[in-house]
Amino acid sequence: MSDVIRISVDAMGGDKGPRVAVEGARLFWKERRNVSYIFHGRQAEIEPLLDACPEIRPLSRIVHADTVISMTDKPSQALRKGRGTSSMWAALQSVKDGEADFAISGGNTGALMAMATFCLRPIEGISRPGIAAIWPTLRTDIVVLDVGATIGGDAKQLTDFSILGAALARALFDQELPTVGLLNVGTEEMKGLDAVKEAGQILTAASGSGFIYHGFVEGDDIGKGTVDVVVTEGFAGNIALKTAEGTARQVGSYIRDALKADLVSMLGAAIAGQALQALKRKLDPRNINGGVFLGLNGPVIKSHGGTDEVGFKGALGLGYEIARNKVMDKIAEGMRRFPTLTAAPQIAPIEASAQEIEAKPA
Amino acid sequence: MSDVIRISVDAMGGDKGPRVAVEGARLFWKERRNVSYIFHGRQAEIEPLLDACPEIRPLSRIVHADTVISMTDKPSQALRKGRGTSSMWAALQSVKDGEADFAISGGNTGALMAMATFCLRPIEGISRPGIAAIWPTLRTDIVVLDVGATIGGDAKQLTDFSILGAALARALFDQELPTVGLLNVGTEEMKGLDAVKEAGQILTAASGSGFIYHGFVEGDDIGKGTVDVVVTEGFAGNIALKTAEGTARQVGSYIRDALKADLVSMLGAAIAGQALQALKRKLDPRNINGGVFLGLNGPVIKSHGGTDEVGFKGALGLGYEIARNKVMDKIAEGMRRFPTLTAAPQIAPIEASAQEIEAKPA
Repeated sequence: MSDVIRISVDAMGGDKGPRVAVEGARLFWKERRNVSYIFHGRQAEIEPLLDACPEIRPLSRIVHADTVISMTDKPSQALRKGRGTSSMWAALQSVKDGEADFAISGGNTGALMAMATFCLRPIEGISRPGIAAIWPTLRTDIVVLDVGATIGGDAKQLTDFSILGAALARALFDQELPTVGLLNVGTEEMKGLDAVKEAGQILTAASGSGFIYHGFVEGDDIGKGTVDVVVTEGFAGNIALKTAEGTARQVGSYIRDALKADLVSMLGAAIAGQALQALKRKLDPRNINGGVFLGLNGPVIKSHGGTDEVGFKGALGLGYEIARNKVMDKIAEGMRRFPTLTAAPQIAPIEASAQEIEAKPA
Repeated sequence: MSDVIRISVDAMGGDKGPRVAVEGARLFWKERRNVSYIFHGRQAEIEPLLDACPEIRPLSRIVHADTVISMTDKPSQALRKGRGTSSMWAALQSVKDGEADFAISGGNTGALMAMATFCLRPIEGISRPGIAAIWPTLRTDIVVLDVGATIGGDAKQLTDFSILGAALARALFDQELPTVGLLNVGTEEMKGLDAVKEAGQILTAASGSGFIYHGFVEGDDIGKGTVDVVVTEGFAGNIALKTAEGTARQVGSYIRDALKADLVSMLGAAIAGQALQALKRKLDPRNINGGVFLGLNGPVIKSHGGTDEVGFKGALGLGYEIARNKVMDKIAEGMRRFPTLTAAPQIAPIEASAQEIEAKPA
């Protein structure tokens, strides 16, 4: 990897077309100048958008791809129609070929996960990749995974996610021994899903090698920042993530209403304006947009499909940090350093698992 | 039921002892005068507390019970040691005997659910009771269930919860046809857990009889108030509830910090004081304390074990509304009106299911 971070963009992903990707790339360039872009997608649509951004035009290359994966394509359909030919696949292939340091897409999550698994392959010892979110808490940012790649998960999968999440926390937050908690419905050992209890036993035995196992945590421990890494399967994880987003938006709306209730409140709000602006930025979900695919041979960032250019810029920032900190190399190194946990059944043939991914969240 | 709402209180439940229950009862009496109390528990501990509350002393009766169920008792242990003899059991028995209009406890959730199921029995057609939360949203209050009685759940259970939740919404919010959504990781039909997809098919066919089936909803739809009733199994439901509580507390803390950041912000906050106080009350989790056990022959309210007298007062208010609106009668009536959905396997012997409840959340 050179000093320049080379970014492979699926320009056709996202609900709002290539404008969000190109404009987001321009906004991100204003913050970090050491980047270059490969935009994958329909040349005729991307070219005029890029021509309108003279700052990043010289740093950018367009690679034409005709096929676009839609938000409603099932993962197996996406693989059939888009393998080799789609902008999504091409964005991943650039990472595999060493032309880019990370790939980013705002497209269909299930399709992206299927293609990424197919193209980049899982790293040794990991049976199924997960999606990690960087979650702001009262203490510091933490890692929460899986937030949507899996549905249900056995003890092995939860253990894998713990290793991957700890490796991400170690690389991103510069923590030698991050604390790991398993998301559960109570903190007593007798409670919860059998898979979670079993994973708790495995992690208790492994605690100290690469992470400290804290024990079970509950939903409210996420916002408190009780641990550095919260591990769960993707159904509960996705619901937790979206419920938190919904609650933050709800409270934000209460604040606005309260401060507009009467003239005195409006005056107070105007005086406290700067503080409230800072608060608004803090609560803006666009600033924490982006999920990291963990467990693959190469970094892939999923931007929210419905976000705008500011959100896309946020996801680019996440990928930039992942690439700059060589997180994937550090994860692979971690897997080699702590081999005991990973001596488990190998991954099933990927062709078969594309079918399974179909039921998974977008 | 007379005009007076007769409340059966497990005074020994909750982490902080009988003081919270007695003091909460006094606070609630100040809001609603048409109440009477039966306090179950250790007479020697309750009596002096009650003597210190002369307002409610004449409306209150103490029924001595020696055994106290602890927060760490497993449901099966609690049943063995506390059936007939504990304050928790006695509180439920008062409802069964027609001496009280609802029971309330801040004790061990798993034990309370096991005892309530044993003492009050599930209503016909319902295989497993659930716990419903009344959730404030941007639109209006809604019902979310199950938030902690079950772990995992098949299509029949999710269908039962839909009927129960709709009946609660109908009775509490005076809605003839509440909308019901199934919590999932995406809104497309192909996504999610098999049980959720199967329940979606059953509810689609049944939509219109007692409720309108909206389809799948995601975590952020809860805070938006997209539907009147959000249905899920207890693992994801409990995590959603606690994640939302944690997020609300986190954002509340951000607001306080922002408005204390400098003198100008503090001045603005002081001027907007009333609006911010109203906001603070709105975000106070004590005001929305209390889960409703649904699916039993009699109303039972679970107050949060760690709450204070203000929180206990909130849970009393919830029970009061449930009793005053004769919600349980209306649920039983609803079950008779819409029999097609409920013609399903009957409940397993209760003795066996106490074992199963053991793994469930507190």
